[in-house]
Amino acid sequence: MTISPLAPAHFPELPEISGVTFAAAAAGVKHKNRVDVMLALLAPGTAMAGVFTRSATRSAPVLDCQSKLGHDPSGPAAILVNSGNSNAFTGGRGIESVKALTSGVAAQTGVSEDRVFTASTGVIGEPLPHDRITAKIEELHINQSDGAMEAAARAIMTTDTFAKGATKTIQVNGKAVKIAGIAKGSGMIAPDMATMLVYIFTDALIGQADLQALLSSLNAKTFNCITVDSDTSTSDSLMMAATGASGVDVTGNAEFANALSEVMHDLAHQVVRDGEGATKFVTVNVNGAKDDADAHRVALSIANSPLVKTAIAGEDANWGRVVMAVGKSGAAADRDRLSIRFGDITVAENGWRAPSYSEDEASAYMKNQELEIGVDLGIGSGRSTVWTCDLTHGYITINADYRS
Amino acid sequence: MTISPLAPAHFPELPEISGVTFAAAAAGVKHKNRVDVMLALLAPGTAMAGVFTRSATRSAPVLDCQSKLGHDPSGPAAILVNSGNSNAFTGGRGIESVKALTSGVAAQTGVSEDRVFTASTGVIGEPLPHDRITAKIEELHINQSDGAMEAAARAIMTTDTFAKGATKTIQVNGKAVKIAGIAKGSGMIAPDMATMLVYIFTDALIGQADLQALLSSLNAKTFNCITVDSDTSTSDSLMMAATGASGVDVTGNAEFANALSEVMHDLAHQVVRDGEGATKFVTVNVNGAKDDADAHRVALSIANSPLVKTAIAGEDANWGRVVMAVGKSGAAADRDRLSIRFGDITVAENGWRAPSYSEDEASAYMKNQELEIGVDLGIGSGRSTVWTCDLTHGYITINADYRS
Repeated sequence: MTISPLAPAHFPELPEISGVTFAAAAAGVKHKNRVDVMLALLAPGTAMAGVFTRSATRSAPVLDCQSKLGHDPSGPAAILVNSGNSNAFTGGRGIESVKALTSGVAAQTGVSEDRVFTASTGVIGEPLPHDRITAKIEELHINQSDGAMEAAARAIMTTDTFAKGATKTIQVNGKAVKIAGIAKGSGMIAPDMATMLVYIFTDALIGQADLQALLSSLNAKTFNCITVDSDTSTSDSLMMAATGASGVDVTGNAEFANALSEVMHDLAHQVVRDGEGATKFVTVNVNGAKDDADAHRVALSIANSPLVKTAIAGEDANWGRVVMAVGKSGAAADRDRLSIRFGDITVAENGWRAPSYSEDEASAYMKNQELEIGVDLGIGSGRSTVWTCDLTHGYITINADYRS
Repeated sequence: MTISPLAPAHFPELPEISGVTFAAAAAGVKHKNRVDVMLALLAPGTAMAGVFTRSATRSAPVLDCQSKLGHDPSGPAAILVNSGNSNAFTGGRGIESVKALTSGVAAQTGVSEDRVFTASTGVIGEPLPHDRITAKIEELHINQSDGAMEAAARAIMTTDTFAKGATKTIQVNGKAVKIAGIAKGSGMIAPDMATMLVYIFTDALIGQADLQALLSSLNAKTFNCITVDSDTSTSDSLMMAATGASGVDVTGNAEFANALSEVMHDLAHQVVRDGEGATKFVTVNVNGAKDDADAHRVALSIANSPLVKTAIAGEDANWGRVVMAVGKSGAAADRDRLSIRFGDITVAENGWRAPSYSEDEASAYMKNQELEIGVDLGIGSGRSTVWTCDLTHGYITINADYRS
């Protein structure tokens, strides 16, 4: 598969995070000889937090993870993830598969089963051949390594065209605190959530409840603000593990929150940059709305509009479709107070095309690979930023064939 | 432009409706030598009703029509429609254009200006060259004819690949009552409304308030139940004129309501059949929901899902994506009570693939041009039917180029 034109130049150098080890293996879940399963082991006392899809048809592993979170950390923990099959809508058999995986990891590694978290991503509705995965747990256990986070990132890819990683290290009182994360996702991307799968690790010390609150809050401004196609996965999972191995308490530390926010933004943007068929990365900035919720509604209406997204694909400065998307959003809007920008170019204001508008200038702007659509509703102080991509022939080609 | 593969074999034979005459002309609104404006004249006493887009950025002519409805009929009435330019988001100039058109028709025909209804469809945000239209009003007035409804249907087309008409005649106490309508629309189609433009005429006798109530009620089950791309036009207008010329009072007449419902269903389905790039006509039937509103939410979530629509385009029996769309809809759902049919083939039930499921059988079904997706949520008695089409390369091609 061709790598997305919006991909970063290379996978980042991820630091080793004390208290976490990884291994990846080829279990043959869907394809032979493809690395498709990863196991992360976490030191005793690691705090675990998570945010999951709100889909009413969410998968068996999502339900299992949700039931296991919220406890204070005690012993070690483990995360087992496979690609190739999502174990979603697989009825009682799906629950049995999760049980087989979690008990398999527990037996092999000594991690208590209620601290073993799993995720599966890939086709919906097919029974998960979990025996192929459990047969690899011993190998995954033996091969654990500090430096295998990139291999883990590759193991969880499905239609992704590049592996996704991000990292940030901060200094707190002269001591380094490291954050590193991996993600997969490229289609079926929309709030809530919009991640597909994201795993973030840190050696910071923080209580479970504080970690959960921070993760949920930052998720609302990152993974819940990206959309590729308005479709929401049944498997979306964002999990974070704080091993505490640095000994640095980051409870209430703003610098840590900012660093984590940067890592989450980076990963969220990479998911959009790998949007199926994407050729443009688009930032939709809405302000002047009645409130933030209305601003978010308008931003998503624009970002999810097939007519806006195809216009962007065609490099057409079709701001009339942005007007349409504002109008259909259901948010409070006054046609005559609305203004619309493409980058720094004001295209519409006072209920009509801007006097300064130049079709040539706007058309030239649309040829950029990174675009900004700005909308000022002019009625309040609500604001929201959403990131998306264009809708191209590539999306149709990928999704008219791929069985996801 | 190639005619949609889902188009009816031919335009129907529309009857003359006593009390209505039509004419069409080429005003050069956008293209030279293309018939792009139509004028309908309605006999004194004609009751007028209408339903319009709820977009917050609706066009100047929509706002003008809305302000003129709700009065009891008195003198004659007129409907003037142009294609090529929607006169939407055109600020104060848009209002001036409407005024120029309505006063032009009033001056030429003697219809009181508050009974002149206009609509414009086409590109958003460009000033309407209304002088080109007013220059044609005399010609349109002179050429009025009982039989020119098909010409009117052609005059209001934009990206439509075929003209849309439907008709039904019923007998009430031995007297014929005729209904005939025309529609345009193929993209930017979604509730509410989902019509683009629809005009229905009848010689039945019915009061304005009763006509309005009937039209609104039937609209909820017809034009508000179709979607092509989830995008909602700023110009959507459905208007109905009852001339009363048959002398048959149809107030509360169920047979008349059924006949009107048939005409509206027919026109609504034709709009979907002309969906941009469409190759499949899809009926989504949802039942067993908590209530009708939830059923409608699920049906629209399925019908608007890019992943479901691309799977249909690819003739892929990808029912997992239907599960996904149910899950993301926000409607009450229980994974384990959900069942899904493709036509008569049960593909999933009891939270999993149906035991009888055959991939070959389901794949063969997907090759049909007319498809049904059935979902039973299994928790209540709410139901809804929505009609849609697939999402193909054709949609991308049309919309990455066309400035709408």
